[in-house]
Amino acid sequence: MTFKFEVIHQSKKSRARVGIIHTPHGIIETPSFVAVGTNGTLKAIDNVPVEEAGLQLMFCNTYHMMLQPGTAVVRKAGGLHNYIGRKGPIITDSGGFQVFSLAYGGVANELKSRGQKKTDGHVLKINEEGVLFRSYRDGKKILLTAETSVDAQKDLGADIIIPFDELPPYHIDRKVLIDSFERTHRWEKRSLDHHLKNPQQQAMFSVVHGGVDPDLRKKSCHFANDLPFDGFAIGGSLGKTKQELFALLDYTPPHLDPARPIHLLGIGDLESINYGVNSGIDTFDSSYPTRAARHGIVITAQGPLDLRKSINHDNFGPLDPTCSCTTCQKYSRAFLHHLFKASELTAQCLASIHNIKQMVTIMANYRNKIAAGEI
Amino acid sequence: MTFKFEVIHQSKKSRARVGIIHTPHGIIETPSFVAVGTNGTLKAIDNVPVEEAGLQLMFCNTYHMMLQPGTAVVRKAGGLHNYIGRKGPIITDSGGFQVFSLAYGGVANELKSRGQKKTDGHVLKINEEGVLFRSYRDGKKILLTAETSVDAQKDLGADIIIPFDELPPYHIDRKVLIDSFERTHRWEKRSLDHHLKNPQQQAMFSVVHGGVDPDLRKKSCHFANDLPFDGFAIGGSLGKTKQELFALLDYTPPHLDPARPIHLLGIGDLESINYGVNSGIDTFDSSYPTRAARHGIVITAQGPLDLRKSINHDNFGPLDPTCSCTTCQKYSRAFLHHLFKASELTAQCLASIHNIKQMVTIMANYRNKIAAGEI
Repeated sequence: MTFKFEVIHQSKKSRARVGIIHTPHGIIETPSFVAVGTNGTLKAIDNVPVEEAGLQLMFCNTYHMMLQPGTAVVRKAGGLHNYIGRKGPIITDSGGFQVFSLAYGGVANELKSRGQKKTDGHVLKINEEGVLFRSYRDGKKILLTAETSVDAQKDLGADIIIPFDELPPYHIDRKVLIDSFERTHRWEKRSLDHHLKNPQQQAMFSVVHGGVDPDLRKKSCHFANDLPFDGFAIGGSLGKTKQELFALLDYTPPHLDPARPIHLLGIGDLESINYGVNSGIDTFDSSYPTRAARHGIVITAQGPLDLRKSINHDNFGPLDPTCSCTTCQKYSRAFLHHLFKASELTAQCLASIHNIKQMVTIMANYRNKIAAGEI
Repeated sequence: MTFKFEVIHQSKKSRARVGIIHTPHGIIETPSFVAVGTNGTLKAIDNVPVEEAGLQLMFCNTYHMMLQPGTAVVRKAGGLHNYIGRKGPIITDSGGFQVFSLAYGGVANELKSRGQKKTDGHVLKINEEGVLFRSYRDGKKILLTAETSVDAQKDLGADIIIPFDELPPYHIDRKVLIDSFERTHRWEKRSLDHHLKNPQQQAMFSVVHGGVDPDLRKKSCHFANDLPFDGFAIGGSLGKTKQELFALLDYTPPHLDPARPIHLLGIGDLESINYGVNSGIDTFDSSYPTRAARHGIVITAQGPLDLRKSINHDNFGPLDPTCSCTTCQKYSRAFLHHLFKASELTAQCLASIHNIKQMVTIMANYRNKIAAGEI
C-alpha cells in the first residue's frame, strides 16, 4: 500500500476531521498521537509493547541515528522497521532541528526563544549548501544538506520523511528571518526533488515555516500547496506562549490544502492537542507523555497524577480504572508509588507504557467525538 | 498446597538431585535459579514478563521493604504477591544481612571480608535482643530482632522465610566468631518458635553458619537438622575465594538432612552454580544476571557477550539463536548494541529479560542432565 490520506469525516463545528493515513506499514487513524523514539526506541519501553498499546506512528530522529549507529548500518539491516523491530508506520525528521539547536542553543531554548545565536564549536559552517557540523560522539565532520538528509532518510526507510529546513530563533531580525525562510523553501524544494528521484514508497511532508508571522505562514502554506508534498508539518518557531501557538493554529491550517494531512511538530500537551484537533491538525508528536512518566506523572481520565506523592502509598486501585494498559491490569498506584520512591527503573517502564496507552485512548476519543458531531 | 519437598531423582555420580518444592503459590523445580527483586521488582523489568520467562522463585529483601514502603502497607495489600503482582513463589530474607552490612561495612566488602568492623551511625546497638538501627530513609529508629523480623516476614507473606541471623565478618577473632555463631543459633531458634505460633503456610529455612570453618559448619548443620526447619540456606561468610566457597560446598551439604531443600545465599555466577549443583544445592539466588545485563553483558550458550563492543554493530542475529526469550525473538545484537551506545534504558530492560530467561534455561538443562544420569 502506498501513501494515501482519506478524510472520513469533516466536522461542521470546527476544522476537526477524522481521517486515515495509509502507509506501506499500515494505517494511522487521525487525529493521532505520535510517540517520540529518538534513538529507535521510546525511553524505557521496547517497541513491541508500544505497538501492542495501539500506537500507530512513531517518530525517530535522523540526527541521532546518523551519529549512532549511522544510517548505513540501518540500511544494511533493511531499514528502521527491521532494525528496531517495529511493524507499524514510522516518521523521521531531517536532522535540521537538532543541528540548528546546536548552532543557536539548546532545543528548549530554541523553541522558547531563550537562546542567543551562538556557535558552540559543534556547528562549523552554515551556508546555502547546508550545515557542516562536528559529531559530538566521535568528532567527525558531517555535512548536512537537503540531499544528504534525504539520503539518510532513504537509508532509514521511514514511511514519512521531512525535507531539510532551517530552524531560525524566535528573536530574529525580520530581514534575517526572511532570508532564512526563503533559504528553507529552497532547501525543501531541493529535498523534494532529491526524494522524487527515488521515492521508495516514502511520503514527504513539507515543513511549514514563518514563525509567528501570519503573512509568512500563509506564504509557506502556498509554497507547500504548490508542490507535490504528501502532507504538511507545521514547524519552525511555534511561539513562546500557548496564546501565540493557538493563534498560529487559527491562522495557518486554513491556508493548507485540506486533502493532505497536517502534522504539528513537537507539541503534545493535552491542552495544545485539544486546540490543535479543533484547528484541523491530524497528528502530533511529543516526548511529553514518556518524559512525564519517567518523573512519576501519569495521565488519567481525572487529570495528571503524581505517583511520588505519599497519598498513593496505600491506594491499591489502578492508575486509572478505565485504562486497559498492561500496567493498570496488573499493578496498583501503591506499588508504582513504592517503585518510584525506591528509584526502581521498573517504575519508569510501567508509567511510560500507561501514558502511551492513555494518549492512544485520548486520540481515539477525539475521533469518536468528531465522528459523532460533538467536536 | 502447603510446603513440601520431593526429591525426584538423586544422582549416583554426585550429590546433584532433581526435586520439586511445592508452595502455596506453585512449584519450584530444582535445581533452580532465584532472581533477586530487592524492592519487589527485578531491576528494569516488571513481574509479569519475569513470570512469563518461567522464573519460579523470586527473592525480596525484608530490610528494604521494611524501610520502603513498610511491611504494614504490604500486609494491607494482602501480602507481597498481591502488592507486587506476582503469582509464583517468593522468598524473603530476615533483614539481618543488610543491617550487619551497615554495621560491618558494605555488602560486597562484607562478603569478601574487605570490611573493617565499624559503626557508621546507622547501627545504634547490637545485643542479645537484636539490632537497633536508624532508617537511612527517614531517620526513624528500628529494632530488628528474631521476633520483629519474623513479624515483618509475616506481613510480607512470602512462601519461604528466613530466621534472623548475624553475619559476622570474614576476618574475625575465633572467640568472637563462636560467640556470634552461638547467638545466631539462639536467634534462629527464637525465630522458628515465633514463626511456628502462626505459620501462615509459610516455610522457614534455617541459615547454616560457621564461616569457612568445617567444624562450625558441621555443628550448624546439626543444629538445623535437629529443629523442624523446612529447609536450609547456606549463609554467613562463604569465603573470599572460589576455592574457599567450593571447599565449603564439599564439606557442608553432606551434614544436612537430604530430605530438605538446600539454598545457597547470594551466589549465582555460572561457575559456582555448576559446582553447587554437583554439591547438592537446590536453589541459588543472585543479582548477577540482572546486574550484568544492565552493564551490557548477556549470557549466551557460547559464553558471556559484551553488547557494548563494536563488533556487534552490524550483527543482525539474535543475542543467542537458541534462546526463546522475547528479546531474542524480536531484536538483534546490532540493535541492542546501539541502544547501549545511545544510553537507552530500553537496552537494560531487554538485556535483563534475556539473562533471566537464560538462567531459567540453564537450570532446566541441569535438571535434564541430572535426570539423564549425565551429572
